[in-house]
Parts: sequence; C-alpha cells; structure tokens
Amino acid sequence: MARIKLLLRYDGGRYHGWQVQPNGITVQSTLQDAIERITGVRSGVTGCSRTDAGVHAEMFCCAFDTDSPLRGEKLATALNAVLPRDIAVYDACEVSDTFHPRYDARGKRYCYRIWNGRQRHPFWEGRALHINRPLDEQRLNGAANAFCGTHDFAAFCAAGSDVADTVRTVTEAAVTRDGDLITFTVAADGFLYNMVRIMTGTLLDIAFGRLPETAIDEALQTGDRAAAGATAPATGLYLQTVWYEREVTA
Amino acid sequence: MARIKLLLRYDGGRYHGWQVQPNGITVQSTLQDAIERITGVRSGVTGCSRTDAGVHAEMFCCAFDTDSPLRGEKLATALNAVLPRDIAVYDACEVSDTFHPRYDARGKRYCYRIWNGRQRHPFWEGRALHINRPLDEQRLNGAANAFCGTHDFAAFCAAGSDVADTVRTVTEAAVTRDGDLITFTVAADGFLYNMVRIMTGTLLDIAFGRLPETAIDEALQTGDRAAAGATAPATGLYLQTVWYEREVTA
Repeated sequence: MARIKLLLRYDGGRYHGWQVQPNGITVQSTLQDAIERITGVRSGVTGCSRTDAGVHAEMFCCAFDTDSPLRGEKLATALNAVLPRDIAVYDACEVSDTFHPRYDARGKRYCYRIWNGRQRHPFWEGRALHINRPLDEQRLNGAANAFCGTHDFAAFCAAGSDVADTVRTVTEAAVTRDGDLITFTVAADGFLYNMVRIMTGTLLDIAFGRLPETAIDEALQTGDRAAAGATAPATGLYLQTVWYEREVTA
Repeated sequence: MARIKLLLRYDGGRYHGWQVQPNGITVQSTLQDAIERITGVRSGVTGCSRTDAGVHAEMFCCAFDTDSPLRGEKLATALNAVLPRDIAVYDACEVSDTFHPRYDARGKRYCYRIWNGRQRHPFWEGRALHINRPLDEQRLNGAANAFCGTHDFAAFCAAGSDVADTVRTVTEAAVTRDGDLITFTVAADGFLYNMVRIMTGTLLDIAFGRLPETAIDEALQTGDRAAAGATAPATGLYLQTVWYEREVTA
C-alpha cells in the first residue's frame, strides 16, 4: 500500500464544492469514481481544502492510498482519460505514508478575479465576477494592505463556523489590473470558512462607499462579522497554490 | 433608418459558425434573434468574416440597419440581456450607411492557441488545442517567418473554395510561449478559407517531422494544397481584431 499525492486543476462551476455531499456531485466523489475505475478499488481521497460550490482550483492537492503500481504520468494520463473535461490531474507521485494534504499544508494562495468591463465577457463567464461600475484598483490595493500581518480574522469568517482559533497570518494581499480584469491575490498560513470571499466583498463595499475606508481595521479589531462586508460570489474565486514545509515525495 | 456597427466577443464552441445554416444554431442567427427581441423588427446582420464551427472571436465586427433609437451602451446592455452567455456585444455605434464589415475590412489578426502541458487543462478545454508532446516555440517561430510577405496562399486554402485571387499579404506571423501555452499569431490583409488552420497544421507537421523544414516555402511556390500540412482543429482559433481604413463612425 502506498500513498499517492495528486495535483489537480478544476473548473468548479458544475460541482457542489470539493467534499462529498448527500445531494449533488462533488469534485471529491468524481475523483474517487475515477480512481475506482482505474485501480478497481474504492479509495477515500483526502483534500487540502473544502472548496465551496463554484470555486475553481489552479492547484488542488489531495492524496489517497492504493496498491496500484501506477505512478507519475501513467497514472495522471489514466485518470484524465476517465475524468470529466472540467477536472484534470497534472501531477501524481508517491509520498510518505504520513503525508496529510490539509494538516501538513503550511500556506495557500487564492485569487479572486473580477471582470470590470462595461459589458459581460463570454470567456470569463462563470470564471470571474462581472462588475460594470469602474473600480479603482490602486484604491482597492491600498485598502487590501490592511489585511497583511497576523490578525484575528473572526470578522472574516462565515457565521456558524466552529473553528476555535481565528488568528491567521496574511503574507500577501494585493489588487492588480490587466486591462479590464482585476485580480485580488491573498496568501496566508491558513484561511477561515469564506474568508477570501468576505475579504473581497469588504473591498468592494469600501470601493462603492457602502463601508468606510476604515472598515477592515475596525473588523479586524472588533471581530464583528457585521463590521465586514458582503460575501462575494464563489464564481471569481480560485485556489492557486498550496505549499508544504518539507519535501513530501517518498 | 440608421446603420449600427456592433463589436462582439463569442465562444464559438456551441455554434455552427457565424453564418446562418439550415441545420444548427449559428452566431448570426442568435444575434438576429436578439436584435428582433430588442427592436421588434427582424434585421439581417452582415459580418466581417464567416468563422467556422467552433472558432472563437475576441473581436467580431458586424452591422445592421434599424429604426430603433437605441445606441451605444444602452443598445449593448439591452442585447446582452437577451443574448446567451457565450456571446456578448461590447460596443455599438452608428456608422455611415455605406459601411460594410467585410468589404471595408483592411486586415485581420487571428491567433491559434495550443495548450502544450503534459496533461489537458480544464480552463483551456474547448479553447485551445491540447498537444502533449513538447513543442519548440523558437523553431516554430522561425518556420512561421516564411509566411510573412506577399505570397500566393493557394496551398493554404481548403479544397473547394472558389476564390479567384489567392494572393494575400501577411504582415505578422509569430509563435510565442507563456508557460505551457503556445500562441501562433498571424495578421494579413485578408485570409482564405481555413488559411490559419492550415498554416497551424503545417507548422505542427514540420515540428513533428511529418513535413520538411522547407515545406512552407515549397507550398507557397507550388500552390499545391498537398505540399502544406493538415488542417488544425477549429477549437484553438480566435479572430482577434478586424481593422478598417477610415473612421467609420457616422
């Protein structure tokens, strides 16, 4: 029995998120189906994150145990032949049998994409939030800077989450523009439930004057969810990278 | 009655090309339906090009005559509200009533996108050709240089085309790489039927040794379709820009 680490990309538009649900297809159940077809055995797959319905991944790390001799490119190619077109494995390697994609993760980077053209864009349909009122990315970038550092992000966590420790360290928070496409990039040692979507919604509420410029500082200090902004839709959110402290290859 | 010029973007994946067909939906018929819903009158729309089934457009110019008073952003917004998600108008303005999107075009630029990663990429599904054997973009770029200049492109025209004059002037032909994404960009004063797809197929046949390095020069000199390469699939092809000699705004 060996543990295999998979790196995936997926368009989350059709899925009810990563994790297996009683109703609706998920990325995890779809991947488990594919592994069963290739190896002949049903294996549980552990993911690095529980992405929400509609969230995309440019790099998603997960792992499963198998007796199959398939490795590397042969395994990736075999899985991609049976996976649907909106999910693909781009790396598959054997790792230590103690490797855990979620517990061993040392940090993640997400980005949130906004199509800021006057009219909607067919190529960004389902892959970026369309906002047609002009956004000032320099002002957004200045506001996003307040997220950097070690803070209690309780105000940026969906109500009902049962996480005890809501302190996280944000190492990067920046807003950039490329033509009419605006990207909010944020990296941290960990993220609370809906954290990036609430951060994005807060930046947009500040941009449109629905919240004061000082809202982020106030929300960080008070921990009050009501001091932060709305939860931005899942459609613009991408998990970009997950990183690990040590080399995990077996 | 006024003539309106529309600039569109579309993902051509679901369409049987631009032009109205007896069987299958086309971009032209879909747009005419949308205009009829907004203006109450069925209008014929003239396009700048007859793109094939599956070909995409980042800028497609077309025109129609109408008595509707809607102009500019109001017209674009109204049309986008009734058009399907894979087609969007991003500009609508009144032009001279002699303007013709195809006859007045002075040049076009296309690009052909190739996803050259080892495994397929979910975000490029239907929007780039996947080739998993490594391609040398510098060698492709060197070969593409042979297309530049004024030549008889008869060998790069689909059989059965009835165009009399097959001489065209290519002003740009370059292959670039951005990570695993390779882009062949080609601009000319005009294009023959399937010209960019045959150019792309010829470059790939040279890259994989199925045609000699001299194939492009030979095909240009002989005008023999058999001397050129295969027709690459429509999926990677984008009409990027159409340009006009004079300011056509009324």
